[in-house]
Amino acid sequence: MSAETLGFEVSARDGEARTGSLHTAHGAVETPNFMPVATYGAVRGVSPDELEVAGAQILLANTYHLHERPGEAIVAACGGLAGFTGWKGPWLTDSGGFQVTSLSDKARVDENGVTFSSPVDGRRRTLTPEGVVAVQAALGSDIAMVLDECVPSAVEEPADALRVRAATERTLRWAERSHRAHEKRDQWLFGIVQGGASETLRRESARATREIGFRGFAHGGLGLGEPALRRDELVAVAHEELPAEAPRYLMGLGKPADLVRAIALGVDLFDCVLPTRHARHGVLFTSQGLLRLKNAVHADADIAPDPDCDCATCARFSRAYLRHLLRSGEALGGRLASVHNLRFYLRLMERAREAIRGGRFAALRDEITALPE
Amino acid sequence: MSAETLGFEVSARDGEARTGSLHTAHGAVETPNFMPVATYGAVRGVSPDELEVAGAQILLANTYHLHERPGEAIVAACGGLAGFTGWKGPWLTDSGGFQVTSLSDKARVDENGVTFSSPVDGRRRTLTPEGVVAVQAALGSDIAMVLDECVPSAVEEPADALRVRAATERTLRWAERSHRAHEKRDQWLFGIVQGGASETLRRESARATREIGFRGFAHGGLGLGEPALRRDELVAVAHEELPAEAPRYLMGLGKPADLVRAIALGVDLFDCVLPTRHARHGVLFTSQGLLRLKNAVHADADIAPDPDCDCATCARFSRAYLRHLLRSGEALGGRLASVHNLRFYLRLMERAREAIRGGRFAALRDEITALPE
Repeated sequence: MSAETLGFEVSARDGEARTGSLHTAHGAVETPNFMPVATYGAVRGVSPDELEVAGAQILLANTYHLHERPGEAIVAACGGLAGFTGWKGPWLTDSGGFQVTSLSDKARVDENGVTFSSPVDGRRRTLTPEGVVAVQAALGSDIAMVLDECVPSAVEEPADALRVRAATERTLRWAERSHRAHEKRDQWLFGIVQGGASETLRRESARATREIGFRGFAHGGLGLGEPALRRDELVAVAHEELPAEAPRYLMGLGKPADLVRAIALGVDLFDCVLPTRHARHGVLFTSQGLLRLKNAVHADADIAPDPDCDCATCARFSRAYLRHLLRSGEALGGRLASVHNLRFYLRLMERAREAIRGGRFAALRDEITALPE
Repeated sequence: MSAETLGFEVSARDGEARTGSLHTAHGAVETPNFMPVATYGAVRGVSPDELEVAGAQILLANTYHLHERPGEAIVAACGGLAGFTGWKGPWLTDSGGFQVTSLSDKARVDENGVTFSSPVDGRRRTLTPEGVVAVQAALGSDIAMVLDECVPSAVEEPADALRVRAATERTLRWAERSHRAHEKRDQWLFGIVQGGASETLRRESARATREIGFRGFAHGGLGLGEPALRRDELVAVAHEELPAEAPRYLMGLGKPADLVRAIALGVDLFDCVLPTRHARHGVLFTSQGLLRLKNAVHADADIAPDPDCDCATCARFSRAYLRHLLRSGEALGGRLASVHNLRFYLRLMERAREAIRGGRFAALRDEITALPE
């Protein structure tokens, strides 16, 4: 498949919200969409079959983790992520930069890249923009991400302004190097907009990233504690600078209410560990809001987690059984709860696409933001 | 369903080996058969659907564990094990005695029962023959087991002879109490033959257990380190005393070679944690013998764990991917490997039944005992 077939088409709009189709070498992704997180090439305890039944269309894997284990050479020898993992649809790989700086407190950033101690064997490793592009090419993902220097938008101290500007500008220089190094024609490479909590920097970053020549873009450093209204503003100014015909991905977000807010601003793609992490802790997303299975009231509740849900878990298992599995440390509990929570997120995306097509997105957004948390 | 429908029919024999059908309130079980172990009402990480596809017909749960968590009242309120767990087929529950004495080093056995400290809350608990029958009735299992005092057959020191005899005789007195207390007509209650490593005691125990009036029997205290030839002798003498028309269950056994040896002696039912425990440690049973996924030679092996296997794991996943998941601590690894190993055991049972019907069981036994371990 050539680069020409890596298109993105918007088929309907409702305000700034839009629905469309993102084409990749391993199939199309309807947008807006949510990517379940499969750090090591597997969503915790959940099989590719189950993800497909739950409505997943694209998964996210972590470049850095796969580089450490099993190493991209083994993934490549087994046919890339699609061959290695059994998930035959599209994959997005992150750049690893965010993981590295959050996993290692000794990460050191300089113009060359990020140097850190591997949590696997303690040895020093360096991620460079070019190296990260090469690893993602070997992994065979459908969407690769540039290496960026992430500064959370929650940082808003005046004293940090220089640091935020420096990181934003370095991210741009790294983006240029990444763009030059990227040769895999059947793989998207997304640029990443940074700029911390500054609208000015976000606007500059978006404009400059666009000028490098990327055809897909992400918002970085958001969903890390900033107020939702502030995030809305930062996303909106970047969108003013980004080409309307390019896909936009908000990295790492978030709660259902966060997602519908961002969709209303024209975001197309999301990923987050929240549905699977909450699942393992017995917190379920339902049509009535959050359900906390640890509450004793569910101990003998012989009803589905969410009677309005069409997932494989709700069709067969009760709150009482899920609660029992989770309390007993049984792996099946996290698995069944993950299937449910992922279905909630993926169904929300289905509903969002349908609502946008029908010009009814505002009503869906209001419904979801009103759910008790 | 009344007690009259709880029948067992032998439909074919090949030497002492036999194949037949065990009828329960939740359906029939073809014998010989293997019961996957679902301690807390779930096989680690594996769903009822997957167990059904793998060919499971009956599962085993641990009475003691379910009594501690979630408690039999909750299971009963959710429709018994079949309603609570989503496995709608037959369940066997053990008595808990073996777990208690192996989990708690402070277990004290007297004529009344077993007193021990709960590993959940540290409080003292007592299991009595009558109490254990009542818990299993509340759990709604299809086959219940009497409380027994287990003395491993590996114990063969002359100084222990008195202790073994005392435990064997106490097991008989408890069996009488259990039989009297058992009122659930749609549930089997199996007596348990003990006797340590003594043929004399095993014969006496089998004869006396039969005389109490049980219609199903188990061998206890075997598969705990005794030589296979010794085990064969102990099983054989008990079978001389047990009614030919009653089902026979060898508790806790074992490796594939152990199973075919026991089937050759006329055993009908098995359970063992080995296939699932081995799976979680990356040891797979295959048509060529044991496959140890931790060996580096499998790191880039893009082939099915067992190319001759018809399980859901071998149909879709490679040795390299399974090895990666297990090394990365991903729950999906243990799950996929468990599905494979259980399919190996269940297919072995299918092959055993077919071989017995065809008068070819000796050849299957020789094939399996010759596999490298």
